[in-house]
Formats: sequence, structure tokens, C-alpha cells
Amino acid sequence: MNTARLEAFSDGVIAIIITIMVLELKVPHGEDLAALASVLPVFLSYVMSFVYVGIYWNNHHHMLHVCAEVTGAILWANLHLLFWLSLFPFATAWMGENHHAVLPSALYGGVLLAAAIAYAILQQAIIAAQGEGSLLRRAVGGDWKGKLSPALYLLGIAAPVLRPWVSQGLYLLGAVMWLVPDRRIEHALAAAMPAGKASPAG
Amino acid sequence: MNTARLEAFSDGVIAIIITIMVLELKVPHGEDLAALASVLPVFLSYVMSFVYVGIYWNNHHHMLHVCAEVTGAILWANLHLLFWLSLFPFATAWMGENHHAVLPSALYGGVLLAAAIAYAILQQAIIAAQGEGSLLRRAVGGDWKGKLSPALYLLGIAAPVLRPWVSQGLYLLGAVMWLVPDRRIEHALAAAMPAGKASPAG
Amino acid sequence: MNTARLEAFSDGVIAIIITIMVLELKVPHGEDLAALASVLPVFLSYVMSFVYVGIYWNNHHHMLHVCAEVTGAILWANLHLLFWLSLFPFATAWMGENHHAVLPSALYGGVLLAAAIAYAILQQAIIAAQGEGSLLRRAVGGDWKGKLSPALYLLGIAAPVLRPWVSQGLYLLGAVMWLVPDRRIEHALAAAMPAGKASPAG
Amino acid sequence: MNTARLEAFSDGVIAIIITIMVLELKVPHGEDLAALASVLPVFLSYVMSFVYVGIYWNNHHHMLHVCAEVTGAILWANLHLLFWLSLFPFATAWMGENHHAVLPSALYGGVLLAAAIAYAILQQAIIAAQGEGSLLRRAVGGDWKGKLSPALYLLGIAAPVLRPWVSQGLYLLGAVMWLVPDRRIEHALAAAMPAGKASPAG
Repeated sequence: MNTARLEAFSDGVIAIIITIMVLELKVPHGEDLAALASVLPVFLSYVMSFVYVGIYWNNHHHMLHVCAEVTGAILWANLHLLFWLSLFPFATAWMGENHHAVLPSALYGGVLLAAAIAYAILQQAIIAAQGEGSLLRRAVGGDWKGKLSPALYLLGIAAPVLRPWVSQGLYLLGAVMWLVPDRRIEHALAAAMPAGKASPAG
Repeated sequence: MNTARLEAFSDGVIAIIITIMVLELKVPHGEDLAALASVLPVFLSYVMSFVYVGIYWNNHHHMLHVCAEVTGAILWANLHLLFWLSLFPFATAWMGENHHAVLPSALYGGVLLAAAIAYAILQQAIIAAQGEGSLLRRAVGGDWKGKLSPALYLLGIAAPVLRPWVSQGLYLLGAVMWLVPDRRIEHALAAAMPAGKASPAG
Repeated sequence: MNTARLEAFSDGVIAIIITIMVLELKVPHGEDLAALASVLPVFLSYVMSFVYVGIYWNNHHHMLHVCAEVTGAILWANLHLLFWLSLFPFATAWMGENHHAVLPSALYGGVLLAAAIAYAILQQAIIAAQGEGSLLRRAVGGDWKGKLSPALYLLGIAAPVLRPWVSQGLYLLGAVMWLVPDRRIEHALAAAMPAGKASPAG
Repeated sequence: MNTARLEAFSDGVIAIIITIMVLELKVPHGEDLAALASVLPVFLSYVMSFVYVGIYWNNHHHMLHVCAEVTGAILWANLHLLFWLSLFPFATAWMGENHHAVLPSALYGGVLLAAAIAYAILQQAIIAAQGEGSLLRRAVGGDWKGKLSPALYLLGIAAPVLRPWVSQGLYLLGAVMWLVPDRRIEHALAAAMPAGKASPAG
């Protein structure tokens, strides 16, 4: 199996996840500002989750871009990642409907953490399949973002006991950190190319 | 990343948005005409939103057709557009269930306006990426439709205070205006081609 | 625009329609046979609609297979067809939840009829775009199925006034009629090919 | 019709099925552990169904990989399989919401059984279309998994009368059995290739 099918299926699942989250934005029963204001907490959760799922979609593609062959391990690591992403609508709605209370906020952080770990497992599965001289290994390098974000989510899980909104800030920080474009994979690809590109000129 | 993946993902999200809107058309509890009539306002909102999402899908493709390369800015501008489109089911249902009352009608106009602005931002991101001699810049030219429709939506947001149905008329006008085929991108493509096409003949 | 994008988008919408219909199969509250039996009418409606949407998907592809170029008219005729198909979940659920009562059964027939007409319009739009010697015109020929099924649906809309289950029988007959494979498009393609195939041999 | 469209449509339907199952994970009304614990049975059902649908997606692709041409019988056998898969969200939710009671657990087993039979029918349709020397026939060989799993599901349907959780164990066993990678199709492909691969060397 090549990566095209895996990408297409993952794209489909991620497109559905990002879209059905909006179904949790229940239409309020009144027609006034108070009714609209009542969905605001769910809406804010929705915005954050939309950004997170967008980031995952983006990074997922960059990662699969340097993966030429799909092994059984990669396939199941990918489904494992999709499983945790599929819990975003539930975690988002529960947190939003309870106005970012302690436990729902911690659960949301737990899903973020599980997805981050699943992503790291998928990354390792691809690196393992590529063996020595893995292009992806060189691309991710120290991977400080991949190491820092689980720490942020862990803090976010613990924080709501003190102040619920602290964890929201930590989750937001995690999203912003990943929004800054990550050029590692492009750089690794570019670094792997010059020899090939130079040869016709030589 | 090339545009194929961006198009496929956007297609998936738009196909889901246009389809889940119908889930807001709640099955009425009776089996008589009165029960069916009760879903009429939501149905009418659904028809209008279906046309709007169809227009966005259509224009989105034409626009990406002249975009060869996806930058980070284009990617996020595209997700930003999808975000506002994803709010159509909510805004449509809220407006329909409240029989086109003042605030729900204004919110619907607000989502239309935000989507139109997001579309303009995406357009600018593609033009910026193409640099001097951008094919898209030439294609859109004065872009009177792109400038007129936000004005219509703004009027539509303000109008329901006077008469709710005025804003419906303005939104309808905005849809009809875009339904008239827009040949700018085809023309720009055709204008950019002749030299290439002529060369074998010369 | 070529047909690939139109097909992919239509596939996406049809795949979602056929799948979200099952969401109308509400999980019953009890855990006994009576609870399960209560969803039986909706389930039977679901089976029939699943078959109908499957038939539309199948025929839609065969038809687009002989369509090389997408005009604005084809694009909107296609969206018009998707609109009526998107009403299947609603009509199916309303008919099922009311145990195939008169008005819901008639509405279901109305949606079947509207979809059949939308399909005929799309067919005409493609034939018109192909102009003289349209391959699709030759393929559909007399199109007795396309002419008979609207008549069946019209009878089905009128029939429930007498006996609700008569219209179910008519809708079923309409589905069975289309399930019998239709080789017209393959035959027309095969008939159009031999000259081309023979030429290298000559 | 080639397999690409069939695969894309099946992918779309399966991606939607696997994702909308999570919509049955209703957001609980409280914000405490008790509220979260109330969704645990549905969550556990969801995990099992996610794995099953993932297995079907995986096997479906491997099977279509050795299928070059789509006949009418294959097309409808495929839609038949998708129909039973589309009942997973319903069966999963009913079983989960009733804490794995007797009848819901038996129904879940019934859907598993029907999907397994539908898969076997699709397999036979492809083998029949390939005729003598079918690559797929060689690939599946004795097909002990395909024969054992229906037996497991049958036991699972009968078991809950004794102990509801016995059937859960049997369904789990069925999933684990298929998780172990199945190399038959790759082996059959590899066995069919060497002649071709060897020729340049000769």
C-alpha cells in the first residue's frame, strides 16, 4: 500500500472531525442575545479545537510527505492517532457546555496529550520503517515542540484544579506554538535534494 | 505541498458542511401538513445556504485552479475560510428556527460577511504568493462582486431591525449575483495561453 | 474544470448522505425487543433509501463517464440533483417515524420525483453541452426507465390516500427496476470505440 | 468502471461511519466524574467498533488491490457490505447505552455477523469475476479467519443469554484475531510477480 490511500482516508476522517464538531454547537432556543451568549463557551472551545485539528492535518501531511511506504505498524499507528482526534468533538463540547470547569478542562488536556503521544508514536513508526538514515529523523531533529507540548498539556490537565482558565491559556499556548510554521521537513527535503539537483549542472 | 491535497481537503469539508446542514432540518413530530409547515422556515434557510455553499465551492475551485503552489499563509487563509463556512449550519438553523427574527438574521449576515472577508484574504494570500504579474490579480481585476457583496451583507445585518425580510432579500440578491457565471478566471487563463498555443502554429 | 473534481465532490456528498441517514435511526431507550421493534419502520425506510442513493451514485458515475467537459449549466444541474438527494435523510426519517402515514409517504414520493427530474435535467445539460452526435443521447436512447419511474413516483404520491402501503410497493418497484443493470452507456461507449480500436490494425 | 472510484467512495463512507460513531457518545450533563463515568460503556463499545471498522477498511483495501475490474455484482456486493457497516453506529450506541445487556449485545453480534457474510460475498464476487486462476482465490486460500470469525460472532450472539460479558470477550477476540497482520494478499501478489521481475535479468 502506498501513502496516497492512507492520506486520502486520513484526510476524510480529519475533514469529518473538524466539521462535525460544529454539530455540538447546539442551536439555542431563544432568539435574543442571551440565547446567543449561552453558546459562547462552546463556540470558544470550538475555535480552539478547530485550530488544533487544522494543525494536526497540516503536520500529518508534511510527515507523510517524507514517508514512501506504509507498513502495518504505520497503518495502525495512524488509525490510533485518528482515534484520539475523533474524541475532540466530545471533549470540546463537554468542556464548552460546562464553562471550562475543572474535570472537563482536564479531560480536554488528556485528549490533547493522548493525540500528541499518538502522533509521536506514528512518527517513530515511520522513522523505524525508514531505518538508518531516515529522512524524517533528520527532519524532526531535537523536536523541541514535540517534547514541549506534552508538558504543556500535562500542566493543563493539572492546572484547572487551581484556576480553570490557566489550563485554557496553556492549551492556547500549545496551539500558537505550532501555528508558527515549522520548516524542518522542507529543510530536510531540500538538504537531501541538492546532490540530485546539482548533477545535471555538473 | 501542491494544491491537490488542499483542494481535496477543502472539498471534503465543504461536502460535509453542505450535507450536515440538512441534519438541522429536524423531523417534525406530527404527520400532518401543520407538522410539515413547521419546518418550512428552516427549509427555506437551508435552500439559501445550500446555494451559498455551492457558490463558494465553485469559486474556490476556480481560484485554486490558478494557484500553483501552497504557502503557509495560503494554507491558513484557507482553513480560516473553512472555519466561517463551517458556521453556516449553525447560523442557518438558528435563523430558520426563529422564523428569520432580527438577531438570528443579523448573525446569518455576519457569517456571510466573515466568509466573504475570509475569501478576500485567501485571494490576497494567493496574489501575494504569485508576486508581480499574478495571474489571479489580473483575473479578478476590479472585483466589483467581491466588493459589492460585503456591502449587501452589511446592509442585511442592519436591515432586520426595520423589517426582517428585507435582510433575506439582500442575502438572496447576494446569492443570485454570484450565480451569474463569472468568466474572469477562464478569461485570464485564456489570455495567458495564446502565446503558448500560437507557438506551434508559428 | 474537468469532471474529476465534480465526481469527487459528488461522491463526497453522496457518501455523506447515504451515511448520515443512519443517524435518523435513533437509538431506542429500552433494551428489549419492543424497543428494537419501535425502530423497525425507520429501518425499513432506511433500507429503501440506501438502495435508492446507491442507484443514484451508480448511475451518476456512468453518466459522468461519457461527459468530458463541465460547463456552468452542468455544474449547477449537478448541485441541483445533490440538493434533492440531500433531502432523503429527512424524508426517510419522517416517513419511518410516522409508520408510512399518508402525507409523509407522499412527501417521500415527492423527493423521489424531484430527484428523478433533477437527474433528467442534468442528463439534458450534458447532452446539450455535447451538441450534435452526443454520445450520451445515443446511450440513453428512448430512456423508458427514466420516463417510467417519474410516473411510478407520481402514483406513489397519490396512492397513500387509498392505502399507504401501495405507495411503498410502487417506490420499491421503482428501485428494483433500476437495480437491473443498465448497459446502455457501456454499449454506446463500445459502439463508439471500434473504429478507433480498429485503426491501428488497419 | 475501474476500482479507483469504488475505493474512493468506500473510503468516504467508511471514514464517515468511523467518525459519526463518536456522535453517539452524548455529552453528559454534569461536570463531575459520575457524569463522565456514565458514558464509559458507550466509550468502550466505541473503541471496539473503531477497531472493527479500521480492520474492515484495511482488509477492504487489500482485497480491492487485487481486483482490476468492477462488475455490477461487485458494485452491489460492495454497497451491501457498506450497508451493514453503516449499522455499526446504531448497534454500538444501543449496546453501550444499555450497558451491554442481552439483546443489544446479541444485535451487535448480528451486525458483526452480517458484515462478515457481506465481506465473504464481496470476496466471492471478485473471485467469480476473475474466473479461473483468480489471484484473490489463491490469496485467501483456506481462509480460516474468514471461517472462524462468523462462528465467534454466532457464539457471541448466543452467549449474552448466559453472561453478557462473554459475548464482549468473543467480539474482542474476533477483533484481535484480525489485528494480527494478514500477509496472504501480499504473498499471493509476490508469488504472481517473480516471472515478470525475473525476465529483465534473464
